[in-house]
Amino acid sequence: MTTTHELLTTHPREAAFDTSRLASTIDTLFGCAQSCTSCADACLGEEDVSTVVRCIRLCTDCADVCLTTGRVLSRQTETDPAIARTLLEACVTACGACAEECERHAAHHDHCRVCGEECRRCERACMEALEAVAS
Amino acid sequence: MTTTHELLTTHPREAAFDTSRLASTIDTLFGCAQSCTSCADACLGEEDVSTVVRCIRLCTDCADVCLTTGRVLSRQTETDPAIARTLLEACVTACGACAEECERHAAHHDHCRVCGEECRRCERACMEALEAVAS
Amino acid sequence: MTTTHELLTTHPREAAFDTSRLASTIDTLFGCAQSCTSCADACLGEEDVSTVVRCIRLCTDCADVCLTTGRVLSRQTETDPAIARTLLEACVTACGACAEECERHAAHHDHCRVCGEECRRCERACMEALEAVAS
Amino acid sequence: MTTTHELLTTHPREAAFDTSRLASTIDTLFGCAQSCTSCADACLGEEDVSTVVRCIRLCTDCADVCLTTGRVLSRQTETDPAIARTLLEACVTACGACAEECERHAAHHDHCRVCGEECRRCERACMEALEAVAS
Repeated sequence: MTTTHELLTTHPREAAFDTSRLASTIDTLFGCAQSCTSCADACLGEEDVSTVVRCIRLCTDCADVCLTTGRVLSRQTETDPAIARTLLEACVTACGACAEECERHAAHHDHCRVCGEECRRCERACMEALEAVAS
Repeated sequence: MTTTHELLTTHPREAAFDTSRLASTIDTLFGCAQSCTSCADACLGEEDVSTVVRCIRLCTDCADVCLTTGRVLSRQTETDPAIARTLLEACVTACGACAEECERHAAHHDHCRVCGEECRRCERACMEALEAVAS
Repeated sequence: MTTTHELLTTHPREAAFDTSRLASTIDTLFGCAQSCTSCADACLGEEDVSTVVRCIRLCTDCADVCLTTGRVLSRQTETDPAIARTLLEACVTACGACAEECERHAAHHDHCRVCGEECRRCERACMEALEAVAS
Repeated sequence: MTTTHELLTTHPREAAFDTSRLASTIDTLFGCAQSCTSCADACLGEEDVSTVVRCIRLCTDCADVCLTTGRVLSRQTETDPAIARTLLEACVTACGACAEECERHAAHHDHCRVCGEECRRCERACMEALEAVAS
């Protein structure tokens, strides 16, 4: 059991959905925020920085959106499902756009390849969380 | 002209919509994030903290969502309108829910009254930005 | 009286120092976070982006540090002065480094000039807050 | 090799110190930010919330400081060591204060016990990073 999962199970209130899946979604969100922060900065450090301007922008946005979504989903006290739902939709959008751009640079920059995979994983996790929250 | 407005007009890329209105939206978002951070903490410091638990939770979420939306809207390079749009929808949802809860405590706690007004102002600003981005 | 000031005076707990000066410091911190977010993105949008890589990095760091410092200073319940103090020191460092770099590009990019001035204002505000907290 | 480690090694610029240790520090920082976000919210959901007000405040601050420190350390392009150093000092302070408070409630609340352990781990990681950056 991960630390995130342990914290969800020791919380006095009930989780929005299955704690094991919720914990995994939260860990994916924080992980994707880290990857996007790293990739934006790695792109900035490349000699051909002018070719990855869009990648820097989308990674920067995606990092912010993933962190806020990860923080909101970490909370279980007096949850407003509509906030979680709309944020997850923004996160699916940000991760999808960022993944698409990272994939365009995957052959040239290994950090874009790794970050693109993280964004796709996070996009899927948010889609599944969206279904779980909506049901 | 505010500093935010000046920075938008000195930016090399074109803004998503009218810079004067965009600057005002961004300032409202950062301002609301500050108000919600203050109100969550003021509620936490009240003797009857157990009666404002929902207010603390919603202010905490709203602060996070407003900051991320304010940051994303501040950026004009290679903007993805779908990210801005879905985030603005999440922000309207968070501000509306937070305002509703703050208004319930407005008669007892002045900080809830002030914060409720800020959240309503931000909710309106995000709704208008949403129309401007979508058009 | 600004909204931030009004929220500090309606807070049930006493502020770390004079509420008028504290409110002004907090507003400066949130304002500088906005300026640095804007300037990092404006630099990214410049045709000569490769010449402002250091400015983008320092603005990005400075935005993050200012936001966290602004949030922590906004809270008055059970304040730990040592956290406020060390964060303010980090913020003086980040603002000073970012101002210095922005000033190097002020003649070429108006957004760097504006952002450099904001960083200097914030550096001073944090230094004064540091003295107020320490005394 | 973790994703964070893989991203550090595929970065075009050199890391501030040994990439394996740096990656582990960054992961600990993001993990501690998640734990503190969870614990603040779990405390808020407890029936005896009035007894854990200080824990909520310190966890909230600690989450913000850990996230900002984790983001700044994730960046390797044009690093300013003084910013990293002062932020790490703020993070050691925040983690130490938060751990001490969590430990006071560890017998009553399992989430405080888990979060206290995470804060101590992060405090140590930041102390070690501080030595590595300074040398």
